[in-house]
Formats: sequence, structure tokens, C-alpha cells
Amino acid sequence: MTRTITILGATGSVGASTLDLVRRNRDMFRVVALTANGNAAMLGELAREFGAEVAVVADEGCLPALREALSGSGIEAAGGAAAVVDAAARGADITMAAIVGCAGLAPTMAAIECGKAVALANKEALVSAGEVMTAAVKRTGATLLPVDSEHNAIFQCLAGNDPAHVHAITLTASGGPFREWEMERIHRATPAEAVKHPTWSMGAKISVDSATMMNKGLEFIEAYHLFPVGVERLRIVIHPQSIVHSMVEYRDGSTLAQLGPSDMRVPIASALAWPARMNTPCAPLDLAAIGSLSFFKPDEERFPATRVAREAVIAGGAAPAVLNAANEIAVAAFLAGQIAFTRIVQSAEDVLARGVPRPPVTLEEVIAVDREARIRAAEMMETVS
Amino acid sequence: MTRTITILGATGSVGASTLDLVRRNRDMFRVVALTANGNAAMLGELAREFGAEVAVVADEGCLPALREALSGSGIEAAGGAAAVVDAAARGADITMAAIVGCAGLAPTMAAIECGKAVALANKEALVSAGEVMTAAVKRTGATLLPVDSEHNAIFQCLAGNDPAHVHAITLTASGGPFREWEMERIHRATPAEAVKHPTWSMGAKISVDSATMMNKGLEFIEAYHLFPVGVERLRIVIHPQSIVHSMVEYRDGSTLAQLGPSDMRVPIASALAWPARMNTPCAPLDLAAIGSLSFFKPDEERFPATRVAREAVIAGGAAPAVLNAANEIAVAAFLAGQIAFTRIVQSAEDVLARGVPRPPVTLEEVIAVDREARIRAAEMMETVS
Repeated sequence: MTRTITILGATGSVGASTLDLVRRNRDMFRVVALTANGNAAMLGELAREFGAEVAVVADEGCLPALREALSGSGIEAAGGAAAVVDAAARGADITMAAIVGCAGLAPTMAAIECGKAVALANKEALVSAGEVMTAAVKRTGATLLPVDSEHNAIFQCLAGNDPAHVHAITLTASGGPFREWEMERIHRATPAEAVKHPTWSMGAKISVDSATMMNKGLEFIEAYHLFPVGVERLRIVIHPQSIVHSMVEYRDGSTLAQLGPSDMRVPIASALAWPARMNTPCAPLDLAAIGSLSFFKPDEERFPATRVAREAVIAGGAAPAVLNAANEIAVAAFLAGQIAFTRIVQSAEDVLARGVPRPPVTLEEVIAVDREARIRAAEMMETVS
Repeated sequence: MTRTITILGATGSVGASTLDLVRRNRDMFRVVALTANGNAAMLGELAREFGAEVAVVADEGCLPALREALSGSGIEAAGGAAAVVDAAARGADITMAAIVGCAGLAPTMAAIECGKAVALANKEALVSAGEVMTAAVKRTGATLLPVDSEHNAIFQCLAGNDPAHVHAITLTASGGPFREWEMERIHRATPAEAVKHPTWSMGAKISVDSATMMNKGLEFIEAYHLFPVGVERLRIVIHPQSIVHSMVEYRDGSTLAQLGPSDMRVPIASALAWPARMNTPCAPLDLAAIGSLSFFKPDEERFPATRVAREAVIAGGAAPAVLNAANEIAVAAFLAGQIAFTRIVQSAEDVLARGVPRPPVTLEEVIAVDREARIRAAEMMETVS
């Protein structure tokens, strides 16, 4: 049975992993739309390889280059933010929403409006626009398939079970590169030290988020929206090997856990083939070779990000969007050498403490909250640095 | 929604755990039949407490005592093996099949014939009568709910998934009390040393099976019948903490595992409430407190039982029944001080090597195979000792 698929953000890391799986399972998918920000040459090549109906660059200035890359192929070319939304609105059986940042919100929402399956790799969709997105999912009957390894793990552990029977959901966290560091050393951590992640290979921003554990804080917010069991049932445990990707404990004392290699193709494959399964080239799990899985209680003294995120969830409304925006600005300031490592989370908390705007009910309002929070955070950075 | 329940073997350990859960969730169940071997006083008390329709003692000599224990209660009393089968045939919504040994075969089969849910705690049903039982399950549409912690774990990890997508099923094994012992010391192991199980509190026979790892071998045979993914996809891994009860790996690289305390009430509750969940008094899992989960490759040089069991599965037909019977006789001989510890598995293998009868197709034939294997094994013990 062939499913149609659209990939929003086809030239990024998640897009590449998704296309790698589609390439290996060509009979399972027919590609509708591929979009990219501005890499017209690569997008054109991918659109030709996969015989896409349409290829779209968000940056309209790159449209001529895309047209040239597709000339003679019969593949439609389009450009601009609205064209990306139109591509998402074509309603493929499954849409991979992998555009990073606020730019991904409108296309993701357009895909949800089609009421089909949306594989969600865009963090902002749930962190900043959680209520807006989940309301749309409810209204349209769309199926959200989380792609983050933690949320995908939880999704798998919930399969066939009624969420009413959940006692607790536990997100695992690697603990980041500073897991065993003393407070004083963490305070003096450099950008170079922060971007060395122990188990996943990632970009600078997300590596710093892993080092502060704000990454886990943001995932906590996402989990809150994806799995409505109540904030008091959401837990975090440190698991340095990153083999157990997350767990669900039921009220009878059974805990289900999903384990796997640190390869994004595993959760992506789970989302793409759901509720069936598809082959991946990932090596089978060999626990005897791994030897040992360890677990620790998180230390929110040294790593306050998860506490701050939990408080933002409890505050609700615009608080998570403000936290996310303020964190991004603070991480950039840290990477630019303007603030100390421990100031990242502290300044995000400070921005939150100054009060948040009223709850956004449309995507436009979410984007306005985000913009405003960035401005306030940037002002604060200048005061601090 | 109240479900009717029958417990075959109500006065044993699994029966007691089952009734403990029924007691804590009285609104969920109405008790149809309770059976016991000969403990009429306890059975009568339980039948009164739970308002059973009927109580049955397998030992007909105990029927007068049961009648007396139930006098004035309005609860039916019956005695004898056929009465136990009749009780099972009343077709409760769920039957807990917890009679130990070959005596459990006919009542378990009678429950399966009703085409409803059968929670399976009787090892012989699948080890000795695997083909006969699974054929009956297929014919009647009954649902087998495994109660062994390992098989229940696998059952949970398969929920909502097509077995065609399974890459491997891995049974975890504690490794038993001799896990780290050298061959020479294992050879000299005493019955007192063998019955000290590291994580579960059990009877002498099953403790010895755990020490030889024949327990895991027999579970391997059960798994083969319960989860038809092929013998080459069944694995065993040593996991001394007994927290991960078993795992299922899918072809996309995702592994689902079930974790929980070493408390039989967890898998029993899972079976009783399936596909829902029910409360148990078991403490929530605290992995940070446990700290570490370790995994090792099994060593079939020091512990050949799993190899012998796998070979019995591959040989098929009567081989697993012969293995099980020969093992029981050998364990009894070891406990009686007649043979060395390492002779237990060796003599079971020797009995198998002398050839097995043709595949049994009825329960009567299974019981005949079992009886004959016991005689041959006992003869061999006399030669050896």
C-alpha cells in the first residue's frame, strides 16, 4: 500500500533521514511536495530523484535557481512562505513537519488542517503553540506522530493503552556533557565545551540546550501537550547511555520502555510506517555488548532548566513560548561569548519573571509573543553583558 | 463492567496473588469457580469470602471437608478431577489456569474450549502440550494471556503491533544464584545453594530450574508457542536485576521492553484487566534508586539448559514434553542428593538423546509421553546414582 508523503524541510537533517528511509522503501511512498528554505540546487536534485509533484523554496529569491534546477523535469516549482503553506495544504497521507523554528508553524498548521497524519519534528509547534496546535488536531482529527526520540518512545509505549491508566511518563535525559561537573566549573563552561554532546551529533543551539538541559525542559513542555496525563505525572530521569528513549508506567506497576540506537531514523521510521513498521538500516540492539544502563535523579540545583520549564507549563498560556524565545536569545549570547553558561537559563527565567502576555489563540499571536520575548530577552542581554 | 472469573488452583501462590487483586478490585469481578487440590478448609473460606458459585477439590477424599466448610453458604461443592474440568468448562470471562503440573492440562484445555480469555500460569500447558493447546486456541478463538513475568512482558510489548514486524524477542534471565560461579564449583553445588534465588521467592523445584537455567529453557519453549515468530528470532539475555522482564525488537530498530518489580501481581493484573489496566499495591518503579541495569550474554558452556531447550524446540513433537518430564525427575534426584548439580541437565539431555515418541495430538497422548519419559528418566537416575 503506497502512501503519499510531503516533507517540509527536506534539505535539513530530519529531512535527509526521512528521504534516506523513503529511498530504501520506495514502494511504500509517493512524494507529493518537498520544501526547503533556500538550497534550490539540492532541493531540485531531491525532487527529481523522488519524482515529487512540487518543490518549494521558502526564500522567494531562490525560486529562479529552483526553476532552473527542475527545468525539463515536469516538476512544479514555487517560492515564498505562502507557497510552503500551500504545499503543506495538499494533504499528503503523511506530512513530515521538519522546518526549524517559527517558520515551521504555519506550514505545520496547514498540514494539521488536512486532518491526516503529521509527523512532528518542529519543536516550536508544541512548545510555543501547544494549545493552538492541539486544538486544531482535536478539531480536524489529524494524527500527530512525534519524531523526537523521547516522544516517539512514549507514543510507542502508549500504543494500545488508554492514557487514563497511565501512572507516570518518564522522559530520559543524557544529562549532557556537564552532567558530572561541579557548579563552579559549569559556570565557567565555554561554548566549545558545551557543543560536545556525549551521544547525539547535533547543531550548536541544540547542543547548548542539551548542556543546560533546557532541551529536556522543552521536551517536557512538548510531552505535556502530546500526552495529556497531567503535568504531575511527567517525570525526568538521567540516563547517560541514551539507549532507553523514554518510558510509560501504568497503574498496575508495569512500565513500558522503548530502547534503540541513537539514530533519528528509528523514530522517523516509526512515525512514517505507523501503525505498521518499516525496515531501517540501523543495527539491532545488543544490550549484552552495551553492558549496563544507568539512571540518576536529575539535579535541578546544577541544572535548573527542567524546573523552569515545568513552572512555565504550570503557568500556562504564553509562558512556554516566552521561555523558548528567551532561551534562544540567551543561547546565542552565550555562543557569542557575551554571557556565562549559567546565565542562559537564569536570563530565560528572568524574562519569564517580568510577566508574560495573555495566552495566544492564533498562530499570529504565537509569533507576536515569540517576537516580543526575543526583543525583551535581547534587551536584557545588553544590560547583563 | 464486571467480568466473571474462575481460578483453577486458588490456594496456590498464583491463586493467592490473583485473589489478592480481586479483593482489591471487587467491583471488577464476579467469581464463578474456585478449585484447589486438597486444602478444603482454605478453599471453603475463600469461596465464602468471594461468593463463588462453586468450589471444587481435585482430591475427592477432601470433598466431605469442603462440604462442611461450605455448609449453609449456598455455595456448590464438588470433588474429583472431572469436577475440576467441569468447573473450568463453565466458561468464565477469564479463567486463571494456575494448577501446577500435568494435572492442570485438562482443566486448562476445558477453559480454552470455551473460547474466552485464559490467563495461563501452568507451564506444562505450553511446554508439554504446546501444539495441542495452540491448535485449540486457534479453533476456539480463545485469548491466551500469559502470566509468567517474561511472557506477559512480551505480550505487552507486542500490543498493537503485527508479529510480522518482529525482528527478535529477547527473554531476560536473572542467571540464577550460580551466574558468576566457575564450572567446578557449579558441579559441586548443593541443594541448599541452589534453592537460594537472587530476586524471586519460589519453591524448591523452580529454584533449581533457575539455578540450572532450565527455567529459562522451558520459558523459551513457551515463548515459541505463544509468539510464533520462529525459533531463530527468540533470544535470551542475562539481566541479574530482573527489572526488565523481556523485550521485543522490531524491524525498524525499535525495542520495546516491559519493566517492573519482582512481584507476580504485576503480570497477573495485566492479564486480569487486559486490554485495560487495574490498580495493584505494587510500588512504582524508581530506576534512579535502582541505579543500574546490566546485561550479559548467556554462557551455554556453564549453563547448557537453554541450548538443550532450543534443540528440543527445533526437534519438535514430543521432545519438549520429554525434556520437561526428564528434568523434573532429575531435579528431584538432585534435591534428594542422588546426582550432582551438573547431572540435572545432562541426564535430561541423555533421555532426549535416546529418542522421543511420535508427536502427541491429544492431551491423553501428552500425558502418556510425560509418564513414559518420567519412567525412563527415573531408570537412568538409578543407573547413575
